Parts: sequence; structure tokens; C-alpha cells
Amino acid sequence: MNEDTLQQVQDLLEDGKPKPELHARLERLHAADIAALLEALPLEERLAVWNLVKADRDGEILVEVSDAVRESLIDAMDPRELVAAAETLEADELADIAPDLPESVIEEVVQSLSAEERERLRAALSFPEGAVGALMDFDHVVVRDDVTLEAVTRYLRRMDELPDHTDQLFVVDRDQVLQGTLPLARLIVSDLDRQVRQVMLTESVKLYPQDRAEDAAGAFERYDLISAPVVDGSERLVGRLTVNAVVDYIREKSAESQLAEAGLREEEDLFAPVLDSFKNRWAWLALNLVTAFIASRVIGIFEDSIASLVALAALMPIVAGIGGNSGNQTTTMIVRALALGQIHGGYWRKLLRKEMGVALLNGAIWGTLLGAMAYMFYGNVALGGVMALAMMLNLLLAATMGVFIPWVRARLGRDPAVGSSVLITACTDSGGFFIFLGLATLFLV
Amino acid sequence: MNEDTLQQVQDLLEDGKPKPELHARLERLHAADIAALLEALPLEERLAVWNLVKADRDGEILVEVSDAVRESLIDAMDPRELVAAAETLEADELADIAPDLPESVIEEVVQSLSAEERERLRAALSFPEGAVGALMDFDHVVVRDDVTLEAVTRYLRRMDELPDHTDQLFVVDRDQVLQGTLPLARLIVSDLDRQVRQVMLTESVKLYPQDRAEDAAGAFERYDLISAPVVDGSERLVGRLTVNAVVDYIREKSAESQLAEAGLREEEDLFAPVLDSFKNRWAWLALNLVTAFIASRVIGIFEDSIASLVALAALMPIVAGIGGNSGNQTTTMIVRALALGQIHGGYWRKLLRKEMGVALLNGAIWGTLLGAMAYMFYGNVALGGVMALAMMLNLLLAATMGVFIPWVRARLGRDPAVGSSVLITACTDSGGFFIFLGLATLFLV
Repeated sequence: MNEDTLQQVQDLLEDGKPKPELHARLERLHAADIAALLEALPLEERLAVWNLVKADRDGEILVEVSDAVRESLIDAMDPRELVAAAETLEADELADIAPDLPESVIEEVVQSLSAEERERLRAALSFPEGAVGALMDFDHVVVRDDVTLEAVTRYLRRMDELPDHTDQLFVVDRDQVLQGTLPLARLIVSDLDRQVRQVMLTESVKLYPQDRAEDAAGAFERYDLISAPVVDGSERLVGRLTVNAVVDYIREKSAESQLAEAGLREEEDLFAPVLDSFKNRWAWLALNLVTAFIASRVIGIFEDSIASLVALAALMPIVAGIGGNSGNQTTTMIVRALALGQIHGGYWRKLLRKEMGVALLNGAIWGTLLGAMAYMFYGNVALGGVMALAMMLNLLLAATMGVFIPWVRARLGRDPAVGSSVLITACTDSGGFFIFLGLATLFLV
Repeated sequence: MNEDTLQQVQDLLEDGKPKPELHARLERLHAADIAALLEALPLEERLAVWNLVKADRDGEILVEVSDAVRESLIDAMDPRELVAAAETLEADELADIAPDLPESVIEEVVQSLSAEERERLRAALSFPEGAVGALMDFDHVVVRDDVTLEAVTRYLRRMDELPDHTDQLFVVDRDQVLQGTLPLARLIVSDLDRQVRQVMLTESVKLYPQDRAEDAAGAFERYDLISAPVVDGSERLVGRLTVNAVVDYIREKSAESQLAEAGLREEEDLFAPVLDSFKNRWAWLALNLVTAFIASRVIGIFEDSIASLVALAALMPIVAGIGGNSGNQTTTMIVRALALGQIHGGYWRKLLRKEMGVALLNGAIWGTLLGAMAYMFYGNVALGGVMALAMMLNLLLAATMGVFIPWVRARLGRDPAVGSSVLITACTDSGGFFIFLGLATLFLV
């Protein structure tokens, strides 16, 4: 949605009371644009707009908005409206919003579904977020391999329109076992007398519902796919994955990792009540408080040294801080390479060697610079030397932990991105204070 | 590429000398998979594999790899090989790798191009990265609006195959002005006697070469597009944008912002020489060094206070650290909302009020907790009080700056993500030390 639309809608909403033109304006907007608009409005205005949206578009829009905003919209609807909205959705869409719907609403909707749809909903709900099964839809068109393209064309022509993102038809046998795929582009340029079997592709990518969505996204990216068949363990076609589901997934993942970096657990409604925001953020702050507290106790050990040479207090955050920055660079690079599947058994040692090399170079340069500055400010050569040496050692520690932490997490099968930054900073803070103050205690006090 | 492939290739590469089977193994891999493989191999092994790749796939693979790896591959090729590789590419692909090719190679390749291809290359190179013009390709199929679908079908059948991602044909008039689009799915289900004009869509999305790629990606995501026509100022068709280019763009952007967060300026070759890594990372460390140095000087002002109450040295990093974490949460959320176009003039004040509310709540809770801990460890009530108050004030500072910094950057038209984190941390570090030590000097010393 562009900013003009938002501005126009706001003008039509002045004083909280929607003007009559607003209704017409909303009618002309695509459901996805209304969703974007609702995201950008504070709660009161958001609900004013939501009430103006035609009931038959409610379902579609609920699928499009973020989890946080969906909650605020659902809170404002009564069960009857929710059932009506949910009934306009297909099984895969319903599965997306089911976790946010009241139990009673879901029960009522399920009863109205056909047996096939109910089975699809059950299947879609049975896969965890992040599995292909949770992203697939059921809008595939299937044909048999022993018919002519002429017959396929006639069959397609009987449909009013093909489902979105139909770039290929799936060829199955009597038992729904996938035989191949027939791209529309191929159907169009081929001789109509030929049989599907002669024209179909048999080597195309296929997915399983339990495949990781991340890997599927990689396949879509590498092989430039628009849709791919999803088959079960007996190679029976159960659904398809389309590039639009993949794009949504990639966007969501990228947002999540961006937010996780700052310890925001999920997408926060921009205009959430203070208490909701607090709940989303407190855990991260608490975790950081623990590590800060540990670092503080490390400093506490050396209070006597600080008392006798107070310059140490002013210089110690520099050693700790640069170590943290440098360690985070190492970890960020490695976590990314891991996500791309670029690091393999024997390479860890090679990587560690390289990172140690970078750390030595950094340590030589920044250590010398900071040592010289410490000497300039405090006129104490030994202090400068300790500063330089501490800098070097903390950078080496940062490089080691920057490789080691993602390595351990990858070994344990945990997502190496989550929390790596807080762990590395904890090491370089406490370690940096310990190294610097320890060296100072040995050589200066 | 999965890990098994990497493992197999490594086994076939043992002792640096490629075994004969490796050649056959590579033959069977998709160009994109070979690219992924090259990314994951250390330089020596990478070049060994690269030498085994058939020359006619060189160009394709160079387009797929990251900038850093492409450089290492190009360095290992002589000009004749480069010209041969580049000549297998289309204009839009050539434009992607042109910045990495030696001047002389480009000149030679340009001479071999047709006038049309040369014009396309010029056009593609004239748009900045991040513009639709730099992402578009020229593989569109055009038809006139006054022919029958029968004629269109016959025309298509004369082609051997349609270009990748052809989900729709573009309808143009005699002057190449775009009239509408004809989706293949629509072509297939429609009566062949009808004219293109009667069946085509006239309201579909179209893009301009100077449009921001980010906005185009948003449109692809919202409207679930597979391809979109790109037109110039006179509505003449100049190219098309496909979803695969959009997916690549989104992935690249997300990687970039992930790397930028840690101050890595560009994708670093995992096995880059130490000096290259240093060059990619030093600027960020230098910037952080400056802010750490300023914070150190702030502490320096209060050295007398620290000398007389050394507990201050141990407690001050906690105040600064939690402020930084909290400020980064605020900024991360706002930067994301800005990128989605969700924040609008009047909302800034509302946002600031909300963030101040969250800060007050955080301050009350963590301030009390830390004040109590300071009292426990040092048996000094006043110290506990100063700790709690400093915590509260620094969190309010963090909230204010967390809103203010992205606001200023958005006003100035700069990308608000870049460097926000280092700025906010600088404020909360120096500010935190100043607040805590200043209060301590007033009330305790």
C-alpha cells in the first residue's frame, strides 16, 4: 500500500467518524491492500475501517494480516461473523488462521465442510509451521497420462478459469500416484494429437509434506519454480506448493530473524497496548540482565585494582565492546553460511584459523591504537601495554567463541541464529573485563 | 544444494586431485547447484571444480554465484574464456555480471551483440541496483489485440518452447504501447474464435523501470504475481519482471540487512583471505571504537567519584547495557514498520508515547530489581536508589532515541536501518554512564 492511500483513508476518517466516501474507497482496494492499511492504523481507526469492509471479504483479509493485527480484528467480531468469514476460506487458508479462532467457531466451520475439505484441513493442521505441509494448497489440476493434449485442452476449457499459479498440470495415475508434470507452456506449443505421456516432464522437482519449508524455498529459488507437486510417502499427489506461498514464507522468515536479533519474539502490533509490548520484550531484557549482572560480578572481583588505578574503569568498556562487535561479525557470517548449507565437517578448523588470523590483524591494529591512546590520556606506558595486550586477547576470544558457539548449536541441531548474539556478547563482556582487569592486576597494581 | 552432494564432491576431490567420476557428477548437477557448491568450497577446491565445469555452462554459473565468489572465479579465467562465457548470456544476465568483468572483455562482448541486444544491455546497465530496470529481463512474448486466439495459439506453436516464467503474453499495439495482458490460463480456457482484445486483461499491474525494486516486490507479494510488464514513460513495453528475479532480490536484501546489522558491508566469501575479511569489517569496528571511546571519556569525567565509591565501576555497565538492548528493540520495530510503509506523519507522537510507557514499565520493574540487588551486594540503600533511578532514566532515554533516530533518518530520506543500532547504542552507553555516575556524584559521593 502506498502512503497516499493511507493519507486519503485517514482524511476520510477524521474525528474517528468515517465519511461516506470511505466505503467506496475501500471497495476499490485489493484485499491485500486493505490488510496493509489495517496494519498501519491505530486500534480505534483500524476497527472503524474494519466495520466498513464488506462481510464477504472478511475471511480473505484475515488471512492476509499479521498475527498480532488478526487478533485485534477477531476480538472485535462476534462468533457468527467469524463463522461466516471462515466459511469463505479454503482448507489451506483456514488452517493458517485456525490457531487464532475460538474453539467453538472452528467446530462450527468444520461441520460445514465436505469430507474432502475436512481431510485437507486436518492434513494442513497436522504439519508444524516451517514444513511444506503447512504451506501447500490444494488447487492443483490433475490429468491422466494416457489422454491426448486435445482432450486435456477440452477438459481445461470446461473450467471457467484455472486456479491461480497454475503453470503446470500434474499427471497422475488411477491411484493418484504422480507420474510427471505438464507445463501449460508446453501444452500450448505441442501438437494436440500427442498423448500427455509423450509430452510430460518426469524429472521435475517434487516435495514431501514433511520437507523443511526453508529447503523448499531454496529449491524454488535455485530452479526458478512457480509451483511444485507435493506427494506423500507412496508418491501420491496430496497438494502443491506455489511461489506465492514461498515468497510469503521468505518474507516472514526474514522479518522474524530481524526481530529476533533484537529479542522481539514475534511481530508486534505497532500500536499494541503497553502491556502487550512489554510481554513481547521482557524475556530478552531479562536474559541480557543476567549476562550484564555476571559481567558486573567479574568487575566486582577486581574492585581493589580499580580503586588503586581508576583509569581502568574508564578503559574497560572499550575492550569489552570491540570484542563484542568483532565476535558478532564472525558469528553473523557463520550463521548465514550455515543457513545456506555452506559449512561442512572439515571446514570448521579452516574457518577458525581464518577468524583467528583476522582477530590477530585487528588486535595488532586496534590494540596498538588504543594502547597509544591510553598512554596519551594517562601518561602510563604500562597501562598502554596492558590495554593493547587485553585488546588482542579479547579479539582472539571473540573469534574463538564466534566460531565455537554456532558450531555447538549446529551440532545440537538448534537453530544457530537464535541467541548467538547474546551468548557471544556475554563471553566478550565478561571475558573482556576479566582479561583487562586481570592483566592490570598482574602488571600494574 | 544438500550436504550429501557437498560430501560426495569432497570425497571425489580428496588430496586436491579430482577423481575422474567428479566430472560426470558435475554434469548431472543443475547450474544453480554447481554455484552453491562453489560457494561452499575453499578456494583451492573451488578452482579445481571450476576447471572441470564444461565451458558452455560457465556463463550461467557466473550469474548465479555471489559477488565475492564470482570475483575469485573470474580471477582464475583468461580473457578468452571470459568472452566465451559472457557471450552465452542474455543482455539482462550480462548486465548483472558486467561490473566484475575486465573492461576489455566487455568491449569484445558488446561488439558481438546485435543492435537490439546492445540497446538492452545499455538500458539494463543504466538503472541503479534496487530499481526495476536493473532486475527486468527481455524474454516477453508479445501479441496484437486484433488477432484471434486461434492465431495466437498457432503463433506460439511455432516456437519450440516459451521463455521461462511465461504465465501471460503482453498485448501491444503497432508502436509497442502496452494494451493489456493475456494470461496463458485464460488463453487455454477461452474460445479460440474470440479476439485477443475481448479476452485480455486491461487492469493488470504494470511497472516502470525507475520504480523501486522494493515496491515492485511488495506488489508481487500482495497481488501474487508471476510476471509483470515493464513500460517506459510513453507506456511502451520495454521488458518484464518475473517472480524469480523478485525472489532473488528479496533474498539478497534480507541477507544484506542481516549482514549490515553486524557491520559486514557485503557478502563475504566464507574462505576469503584474512586481508579481504579485514577490509570488509574494519570500518564497523572503527566506528564502534569511536563511540566506545566517547563513552570512555564520559566515565573519565567521573573518575573521582569512582575512586571514592568503586562499586560504581561494577554497576555502571548494567545500566548502559540494558538501555542499549531496550533502545534497539524500539528501533528495530520502528524501522520494520517504516519499511512496510506503516508509519505516517501524525503517528510519531503516538508511537513515542507508547514507547515511553513501555520504558516506564520496564524501568519500574528492572530498576527496582537492580536497585535491590545493588543494595544486597553493597549494603548501601542510597546506592540502590541511584541504581533504580538511573535505570529508569536511561530506559526513557533509550525509548526517546529509539523513536527519534529512525524519525530523523526517515526525514532525511536515508535508509533508517543502516547504522541505527550503532547510534542508539552510542546514546545509551554514554548517556547511561553519564546518568548513573552523575546521579551518584550528586547523591552519594
